[in-house]
Amino acid sequence: MKGDICTAVFMPGGKRAEFKRGFSILEAAESIDLKIESACGGQQKCGMCKVIPTGNLSKPTQDELRLLTEEEVERGYRLACAATIQGDVTITVPMESRMREQRLQIEGIEQTVSLDPAVRKYIVELPVATLEDIRTDKERILERIKEVFGLDLEIEYGVYKQLPGAIRDGEWTVSVAVWNGKRTLSVEPGVVRHAYGVAVDVGTTKIAGYLLNLRNGEVIGKAAIVNPQIKYGEDVVSRISYATGADKNLERLQTSVIDAVEQIIKDTCAEAGVETRHIYEIVVVGNTVMQHLLLGVSPKYVGRSPYCAVLGSGDFRASDIGLKANVNVNANLHTFPVIGGFVGGDHVSAILATKMNESEEMSMLMDIGTNTEIAIGNKEDMISCSCASGPAFEGFYIKHGMRASSGAIEHVEINPETFEVRYRTIEGVRPRGLCGSGLIDLLAELLKTGVMDSAGKLNPEIESNRITTNFRNDEVEFVVAWERETGIDSDVVITQRDIRELQSAKAAMRAGAEILMLKKGLKEADIDVFYIAGAFGSYVEPANARIIGMYPEVDLERVKIVGNAAGSGAKLALISREERAHAEEIAKKVRYIELAAEPKFTRCYMLSHYFPFGAALTDNIRK
Amino acid sequence: MKGDICTAVFMPGGKRAEFKRGFSILEAAESIDLKIESACGGQQKCGMCKVIPTGNLSKPTQDELRLLTEEEVERGYRLACAATIQGDVTITVPMESRMREQRLQIEGIEQTVSLDPAVRKYIVELPVATLEDIRTDKERILERIKEVFGLDLEIEYGVYKQLPGAIRDGEWTVSVAVWNGKRTLSVEPGVVRHAYGVAVDVGTTKIAGYLLNLRNGEVIGKAAIVNPQIKYGEDVVSRISYATGADKNLERLQTSVIDAVEQIIKDTCAEAGVETRHIYEIVVVGNTVMQHLLLGVSPKYVGRSPYCAVLGSGDFRASDIGLKANVNVNANLHTFPVIGGFVGGDHVSAILATKMNESEEMSMLMDIGTNTEIAIGNKEDMISCSCASGPAFEGFYIKHGMRASSGAIEHVEINPETFEVRYRTIEGVRPRGLCGSGLIDLLAELLKTGVMDSAGKLNPEIESNRITTNFRNDEVEFVVAWERETGIDSDVVITQRDIRELQSAKAAMRAGAEILMLKKGLKEADIDVFYIAGAFGSYVEPANARIIGMYPEVDLERVKIVGNAAGSGAKLALISREERAHAEEIAKKVRYIELAAEPKFTRCYMLSHYFPFGAALTDNIRK
Repeated sequence: MKGDICTAVFMPGGKRAEFKRGFSILEAAESIDLKIESACGGQQKCGMCKVIPTGNLSKPTQDELRLLTEEEVERGYRLACAATIQGDVTITVPMESRMREQRLQIEGIEQTVSLDPAVRKYIVELPVATLEDIRTDKERILERIKEVFGLDLEIEYGVYKQLPGAIRDGEWTVSVAVWNGKRTLSVEPGVVRHAYGVAVDVGTTKIAGYLLNLRNGEVIGKAAIVNPQIKYGEDVVSRISYATGADKNLERLQTSVIDAVEQIIKDTCAEAGVETRHIYEIVVVGNTVMQHLLLGVSPKYVGRSPYCAVLGSGDFRASDIGLKANVNVNANLHTFPVIGGFVGGDHVSAILATKMNESEEMSMLMDIGTNTEIAIGNKEDMISCSCASGPAFEGFYIKHGMRASSGAIEHVEINPETFEVRYRTIEGVRPRGLCGSGLIDLLAELLKTGVMDSAGKLNPEIESNRITTNFRNDEVEFVVAWERETGIDSDVVITQRDIRELQSAKAAMRAGAEILMLKKGLKEADIDVFYIAGAFGSYVEPANARIIGMYPEVDLERVKIVGNAAGSGAKLALISREERAHAEEIAKKVRYIELAAEPKFTRCYMLSHYFPFGAALTDNIRK
Repeated sequence: MKGDICTAVFMPGGKRAEFKRGFSILEAAESIDLKIESACGGQQKCGMCKVIPTGNLSKPTQDELRLLTEEEVERGYRLACAATIQGDVTITVPMESRMREQRLQIEGIEQTVSLDPAVRKYIVELPVATLEDIRTDKERILERIKEVFGLDLEIEYGVYKQLPGAIRDGEWTVSVAVWNGKRTLSVEPGVVRHAYGVAVDVGTTKIAGYLLNLRNGEVIGKAAIVNPQIKYGEDVVSRISYATGADKNLERLQTSVIDAVEQIIKDTCAEAGVETRHIYEIVVVGNTVMQHLLLGVSPKYVGRSPYCAVLGSGDFRASDIGLKANVNVNANLHTFPVIGGFVGGDHVSAILATKMNESEEMSMLMDIGTNTEIAIGNKEDMISCSCASGPAFEGFYIKHGMRASSGAIEHVEINPETFEVRYRTIEGVRPRGLCGSGLIDLLAELLKTGVMDSAGKLNPEIESNRITTNFRNDEVEFVVAWERETGIDSDVVITQRDIRELQSAKAAMRAGAEILMLKKGLKEADIDVFYIAGAFGSYVEPANARIIGMYPEVDLERVKIVGNAAGSGAKLALISREERAHAEEIAKKVRYIELAAEPKFTRCYMLSHYFPFGAALTDNIRK
């Protein structure tokens, strides 16, 4: 201790803090960002911030003595919010008082977040009613929670129905699920600590869901299904068109996606042995149109210039949206903020997962899907755009295209001399078609072996029986797998028309990337990290994707495949309110670039159809 | 002006205020409780507090010049919140800037309240969306409302569905209905100022509803129907018993009362030509059990010692409660605070209507119904109790009892010599039965003429053919109207058993009143005002009610018949948030007395059966 300056060493870990005498232990810990549990915000009410200090400290307060057991007092426990530091001290923070941190492994990136879900359960002991204390159950519970935890709660309508029974069945001890320190979601008799949540990424084509334990942040289940809205249109534009058609269409779209989300929740809960009534929150990310459709809000104007969304982030009672059967009746449904009509919550979520918005490094993120969103920037400034890439790389509109499931060819090599093909299928079974990564490999190999030229035209002159002309439509095809090898009643081929579809898709992505780089005045060498996201992205061979020109000529070492980053961001937001706040900041920070309004876009898009996409061509389109 | 002290005279009216130089006109007006309209709370944002001052004032601010039209500036208009007073001034407050006051005639009492309903409509002009301003509709409207009116709003889920259409159809001008400066209930295209509300008194036997225009506080419709829950039990105890029986019973009770409330709203709106979607709020008062049943919350523990309610006051989305078809989809339903399990929101409401809690005078309020609640006290202290008086005075369990409707005998006189009967029926038609006021008159007349003795026994020796013995059950009866005069196929009679029922009812009321007076140490002479309330009460002859001992021997001059005071209080709360806050204060202030726990109650109740209830008997029961 020097003059008025004390030193505190926090154990385990040995973190040191220096500060003026008279600070509370809690304040000292906060000054070095060491997180100690506290529900009452340091008001000596909740008794959660127990620590074991040694050294020169203030005397225990009446509140401390009331909130600690006799045994704890004997063992030297103090409340961090009450004990003030009067000299150099060493403070042991026991396990139960440490604010839990959670390392979340998301494919390709690992993030550490403070576990602080919006939903928390409080165990409340109530004073028993007597003729002298005839407060209503409502007053009794609210006043007690205010007293002990310092929270001003509101009670949801449905909770009143549980209240009288829960209080008496629990013999005046109840467990209260609270959302965001504000809304009471449920009151259960006795001590029931279970609390679960679900993060959902609603893609145009695929819906992925993750079941998380909100008490420790663990992912305990996941499931993915095709978005059943597909029967009403395969891309966002056709969904908008359907939604704004006949009266009941919007409702149909909403119901179908809600049913799918319910199915995911039901399945993951059943597998993990979780009671669905303990699902208290659902965090949803999706592109702007998907989020509107889930809420049953018309996306009519999202699709018309200037492409305004009705809303981005919001918190709703899940049952209002139609999620009733497989969640707590008062569960909260949180939707993500959006950047614009075509850069939605899923992209905000993907940015959140990479934390590129907080980094000094210049990063680029390409989130590949039926719509491909691209962001570029760093902590200083970020811009983003949306490319209508279509679902070709997800296997749609491709003759033998398929999703990345059993039997899909996911990797391809072509012998440059014999043109013989080696391939690998998912689960090693007989091939049934081609998924995204297989298509990328195939294009790259066709190009390298000269089977396809730089304009994307298959060369019928190649001496191989794998190049054939379909007698029905005179179309040139390349046979990837012969009928005798496949699990279907035909060869697996790629047609000239397939290649045109894939060219359009990759051109849209590449043109978007180029425009953003132009806007920021950046070259490939300026990009420190290039993230490829999208469920599709996880299986991609970065070198091949670069060969076919899907993305700029960034050093392969700088490319990171981050899988379903949108889903990862949703998980982060589900278990951490801080991350949820970061998402809002991202949506405010990132500026939207409307590609259609960029004069260079059309030329850039046309030129981006070519293979390969070398430096010369890049220079050309940047003129 | 003397030194720094300025004088302001407000016109019309000529109210004077004295205060230090530099106050704004708005502050000066508030200092003398003169109310000027303002939505932004004096922040120079809303432009509603326009006044025309003369004298020495500060120069107009930029905000004033922006918010006033050129013409207004020329005519000398200023904003009361911006213009500060620099000397003696005269200020004309034009009609449109005066906060509307409303005189509400409630039967027997007239109250003046500031018109300040929880629901208010704001006309909002939005900046048009462009590619440079792609805020979501949500942000656009919330930020604009914050800017102009200083309100931080939340948007209800259902409103998002209206939002995009309303904004575009209204060409960027919308009308926003806001509840309590917080919840957005609806957004309509263009300028739509309509706003209505409904006050409902849910009695055990009768439901009364009033339709009010929230823009001027006028009652523009009313209706009353029998509470359809009656088929599940005639008093609160039997309703509790039914509600806690089979699974669906509670739901049945709720649905039936909700249907009745919907019917009242539908009918009154149709008659007044009001669109039901413009009903934005419903204020409900009822006894504690009725309020629970309306909310579908089990009253199980309300009926068991210590008689705790689950909740008293609350604000709910009416559609959550089941009120869907005939109100705005996001309308608010407000329930009243309660004093205890058996002194409910209707009694709080009746006290609110009389304002006895604010008075220096010692008041007593008897709100007669199937349960009769009694309150006694003044601004210093108040106590209340509930008496299980039963529905006899509402005509139930009485052979020829009926509600106060067409053909009911509402007034009776008996000639003491001939025993001939004169009566008056409602609407002057042939008698069909006896309503409450008729029964009271009849008892008093039977007593005065000696047809009935002080124990309530009919004297069969009376020489009149009106005294007969029913040959079926040997019961003595008194014929009030002969068959030839009536509108039914028999005489209208009162039986010995009827008299016993009525005795029990009045004994319960009287015993409650006596216990409260004992508790407060008061005698009749100490009661400055005695209020008789209850829809039933309006037609009562106070002298006769006193003769039969329904209430203590208070000077008749001090008796005020105030009709459905509970309904009146509900109306006050519907049009004034201040009154709603007063209701909360009343519920907190008034202490509940459990009669069953009072040692003197049983004896008092037994003795209270006697007629008449003179001073000697009073002295006796007070021993």
